[in-house]
Amino acid sequence: MSGRSRARPLGVVVGALPPGPLNAITDVEGVLVGHTTIDDGADLHTGVTAVVPRPPRPLPAAVHTGNGYGKLVGSTQVDELGVLESPIVLTGTLSVFRAADAVLTYLMRAHPRGLSFNPLVGETNDGFLSDIRRRPITERHVLDALEGASGGLPAEGCVGAGTGTTALGFKAGIGTSSRQVEAGMPVTVGALVQANFGGVLTVRGVPMPVEELVPGAARVEPPGNSCVIVLATDAPLDARQLGRLARRAIFAMGRVGASYAHGSGDYAIAFSTAPQRPVLPDAALDPVFAAVMDAVEEALLNSLFMATTTTGVHGHTSHAVPYDRLRAG
Amino acid sequence: MSGRSRARPLGVVVGALPPGPLNAITDVEGVLVGHTTIDDGADLHTGVTAVVPRPPRPLPAAVHTGNGYGKLVGSTQVDELGVLESPIVLTGTLSVFRAADAVLTYLMRAHPRGLSFNPLVGETNDGFLSDIRRRPITERHVLDALEGASGGLPAEGCVGAGTGTTALGFKAGIGTSSRQVEAGMPVTVGALVQANFGGVLTVRGVPMPVEELVPGAARVEPPGNSCVIVLATDAPLDARQLGRLARRAIFAMGRVGASYAHGSGDYAIAFSTAPQRPVLPDAALDPVFAAVMDAVEEALLNSLFMATTTTGVHGHTSHAVPYDRLRAG
Amino acid sequence: MSGRSRARPLGVVVGALPPGPLNAITDVEGVLVGHTTIDDGADLHTGVTAVVPRPPRPLPAAVHTGNGYGKLVGSTQVDELGVLESPIVLTGTLSVFRAADAVLTYLMRAHPRGLSFNPLVGETNDGFLSDIRRRPITERHVLDALEGASGGLPAEGCVGAGTGTTALGFKAGIGTSSRQVEAGMPVTVGALVQANFGGVLTVRGVPMPVEELVPGAARVEPPGNSCVIVLATDAPLDARQLGRLARRAIFAMGRVGASYAHGSGDYAIAFSTAPQRPVLPDAALDPVFAAVMDAVEEALLNSLFMATTTTGVHGHTSHAVPYDRLRAG
Amino acid sequence: MSGRSRARPLGVVVGALPPGPLNAITDVEGVLVGHTTIDDGADLHTGVTAVVPRPPRPLPAAVHTGNGYGKLVGSTQVDELGVLESPIVLTGTLSVFRAADAVLTYLMRAHPRGLSFNPLVGETNDGFLSDIRRRPITERHVLDALEGASGGLPAEGCVGAGTGTTALGFKAGIGTSSRQVEAGMPVTVGALVQANFGGVLTVRGVPMPVEELVPGAARVEPPGNSCVIVLATDAPLDARQLGRLARRAIFAMGRVGASYAHGSGDYAIAFSTAPQRPVLPDAALDPVFAAVMDAVEEALLNSLFMATTTTGVHGHTSHAVPYDRLRAG
Repeated sequence: MSGRSRARPLGVVVGALPPGPLNAITDVEGVLVGHTTIDDGADLHTGVTAVVPRPPRPLPAAVHTGNGYGKLVGSTQVDELGVLESPIVLTGTLSVFRAADAVLTYLMRAHPRGLSFNPLVGETNDGFLSDIRRRPITERHVLDALEGASGGLPAEGCVGAGTGTTALGFKAGIGTSSRQVEAGMPVTVGALVQANFGGVLTVRGVPMPVEELVPGAARVEPPGNSCVIVLATDAPLDARQLGRLARRAIFAMGRVGASYAHGSGDYAIAFSTAPQRPVLPDAALDPVFAAVMDAVEEALLNSLFMATTTTGVHGHTSHAVPYDRLRAG
Repeated sequence: MSGRSRARPLGVVVGALPPGPLNAITDVEGVLVGHTTIDDGADLHTGVTAVVPRPPRPLPAAVHTGNGYGKLVGSTQVDELGVLESPIVLTGTLSVFRAADAVLTYLMRAHPRGLSFNPLVGETNDGFLSDIRRRPITERHVLDALEGASGGLPAEGCVGAGTGTTALGFKAGIGTSSRQVEAGMPVTVGALVQANFGGVLTVRGVPMPVEELVPGAARVEPPGNSCVIVLATDAPLDARQLGRLARRAIFAMGRVGASYAHGSGDYAIAFSTAPQRPVLPDAALDPVFAAVMDAVEEALLNSLFMATTTTGVHGHTSHAVPYDRLRAG
Repeated sequence: MSGRSRARPLGVVVGALPPGPLNAITDVEGVLVGHTTIDDGADLHTGVTAVVPRPPRPLPAAVHTGNGYGKLVGSTQVDELGVLESPIVLTGTLSVFRAADAVLTYLMRAHPRGLSFNPLVGETNDGFLSDIRRRPITERHVLDALEGASGGLPAEGCVGAGTGTTALGFKAGIGTSSRQVEAGMPVTVGALVQANFGGVLTVRGVPMPVEELVPGAARVEPPGNSCVIVLATDAPLDARQLGRLARRAIFAMGRVGASYAHGSGDYAIAFSTAPQRPVLPDAALDPVFAAVMDAVEEALLNSLFMATTTTGVHGHTSHAVPYDRLRAG
Repeated sequence: MSGRSRARPLGVVVGALPPGPLNAITDVEGVLVGHTTIDDGADLHTGVTAVVPRPPRPLPAAVHTGNGYGKLVGSTQVDELGVLESPIVLTGTLSVFRAADAVLTYLMRAHPRGLSFNPLVGETNDGFLSDIRRRPITERHVLDALEGASGGLPAEGCVGAGTGTTALGFKAGIGTSSRQVEAGMPVTVGALVQANFGGVLTVRGVPMPVEELVPGAARVEPPGNSCVIVLATDAPLDARQLGRLARRAIFAMGRVGASYAHGSGDYAIAFSTAPQRPVLPDAALDPVFAAVMDAVEEALLNSLFMATTTTGVHGHTSHAVPYDRLRAG
């Protein structure tokens, strides 16, 4: 495919906890991922990524806002009721409402008499590489991502909602990872990220400034940069506890060098596929927190490592991470 | 017109504080209101209401969630930055994302190079009287409400986003009111409400149960009922202080008998047209708080008193408040 | 005793839901109440009230801040972990930390090796009638309230933490009430209030301004007035749901005429004595919400109706509600 | 003194932004620091640290809770009013209420007629090295820290509220640092930390596990570990903006390897010494955010580097960071 590699095969291993078989959010039983990629080779580099927990829904869920400069659709109802009622869809900023409307279409089909739905739709501003004012996302794109969602290892890098994103100075996109831990019971935590934020890429403690690694490249800090992180787990947790996980997802951004800038919409969404009670005691959560932080860190690295150099609107170029430099170092 | 009267001319006076000249949110200098009403006499009773603070924006603002069973678009960015960057639009629940997308269109026209906008769009579920699954709101409807916004006394009752709403057992809709107080400086507070929530109508302490006042009427508690309250003030206040006002708007719902039900999306949005500093000291806010509570209570009464009996989808009927019974009593 | 009556025997009945056998928070199985009253007939009118859920603790719990001008001890840990780990103690504002330290003593005795405890201690400013700068509450006072806590109908009015409080223009104090509802299972909700806040007393919709009812009396609005509300229920609810109940407790203050003033520390604490899972579905909560609002309203009325005219520091007098005027009217 | 060095003289430099003259929170004009150290060479290793902004107060302020397993006193009133009304005091967990009561004494002396005060007192659990059940902090200790507060470089390491703390496996304590940036105007940001939390010490990206660096040492993860961070700035910012700074202080903990554990009470308190308006625009805050993150990271390193090996209660030993290993590496 792209000739790019995930972090782990390159020897970049985050922490000591084992990943699941796919090292992906789809290691959490019942979680599917679908992408629609829009790349016309010219001014459009955008798309849709759907994270679809298999019905029945609702599932316990929480949203945490790390920095609220973003247009996440659906958060207040998740806060109030503590549940995810729909698939989670990610896209580009000016298309977020069309995407949310398309999720309504999807839900209305599934519930022919339903009168109230709460789509949860995140976005980042992919306007550095894509002509977002054209609002190119159609209902069909969103339905394709939702209906095409599947298990298995999701595509990463320049796909779906990550087609046009840039993070830490480099071309980024979608990344995923997972961890398996013991927390009184075996628990899988999966993360999927849409990476599009500022800072200096730091790989396991080593700064990799784009301006040093890519000859002639300038630091790219797109306006309205953002990061949306989706966490799934099979641990039986309630909404309050999932909120604690979501906070740690935001904390993990710092490990790869996030600057947590003013203009970034940094959100984490966490859900559990185990609605049954009882829930895990909070005192058992430390391994789960560690799993969250490691999975998010590695998902962020994967989002960068799997992405390819892209030139888009206005001739802007976002460079792939030259990770060979890592191996050499 | 409808032959209906606002509360005050009927002798129903809330509190001792004087209203502004119009007794409307438009008493706050620079605040305009526009409506698009969709009423086909059959299955569609819905619409759009826009509250438009004249540019320049952004303005200091806050959102408070009384009960988050709703799909308010735009709240996290208001929380983070403390500003209103767009007009406020209200509509019906399944049309909220199309309305938000139309606000994008409006803002993109005004800012031809802008790449990031945060529309603030509230909704209630008007599905008791309107066939909301048709998602009848178009971009044109929203632009009409925005572009047609004006000063003067806004229409109330069954107009705009209130065309299909029901509150406290009776037909309700849009209502507005204002108060003028002294808080170290003269201050005007205006409220506009989209009323669509449960409870037993209580007029200045007197319960008016629909089942007693309207022969043959049953109590109507539409699923997904809600109340969206917009507050405007010319007092120089920052976002934190406006959040304090917004909380009191929610508190005022209780005065007319709100049940604060599980299924209600109750939100208050407050903004100040006075971005300049310094702000009023918090210790000066008590008269402003009182103004908020009285204006919201009266706006809610106006939303009911001005509404007319409406029959809509599935033959559902929502009855106008028989306020003659009040005068008799 | 005081010759005073609770609201209900006077015919003042809040809502249609039945109270429990005692019409008190102690109707919730396992909930005990204790008071220590400090009244020297001169400058000291204060005390301690303890609400003690029988061990084992922790229990699911939430705190909601209606207006945060207060010094509630322990809230952030309840927010994070969603549990009540200690009895709840109420007292006067400048004594709140000594009271919290005394709760530590109580908990350390019960847990001889414990190194971390989270007392939950509320306060209101009873400085209108009591010389609070003397910080008269000792460890002994607090331990007496905790150790003397019992079932049965708690004393109301000028007792414990209500000895020196004033609300809605009149002498107030401690009040309690309960409701029994069906929510898929039989549920009891109990409320206990420490009432010390501003506004115009409104009894079932009828305003009772002190300046009209008590010859020569002036409206009393003590600085730093507040209301702390404790809710107990045997319904199996998690912390998020208890937060929803707590919000409605604050909403209920409006029904008796609360002004929700700037200077008021208005807090509600809700806990469940049923830690077992599964929890009630949110869609079943409307009767519980109604029970909360009615129980709080009646507890507030009881806190006023049971209180007696009190003269305290600086010769300040706070007058008992002349509820005979109600019966006459 | 201790023969220990701060990070910077050892060549451990965090970021490119320049520190202030003292590289301390006291670089912010008008901010004083005082310590009372309690170290009996045996079972008591605790104390008090006071951060005292010179009057007049109140000053704009915010509290952010990273993980609320802690007993921070005073947070709800700061949330509501957005101001700091008192000095900030830090101490050990079971002494926090006695310390808060002592702050009341201090404030009552300064305001002989005051009836309401909101002390802000943070704590961590120093029970690994100190016999905290003795609650050794007296009013005198707190008053000494407050009254002895001064400008100049504060003592760091095993002093004041850091006398008995342990972080990231090593002996830690109090640390401080500052940064000077241009944000439309020259701005100084200062941080002071009380470090007592879990994780693996990471110095500028290099993990330094205690079990590898100290022969025979075991990883120490005291129960109830915590981190309290105080930020001061002379930038004119309001409470909402200071909350944004406070969040980044918590984010910075990750840079030194914080595990953000379940049992940690991680709080950041931010205040501005510039109450005047207008405030800086949010779009100017990125350099200030960077200054916060760098100052907190370096303050945390200083808290460790300046601390000395300590043996306390139960013969527990917490080892000083062997930073010579860094220079060698």
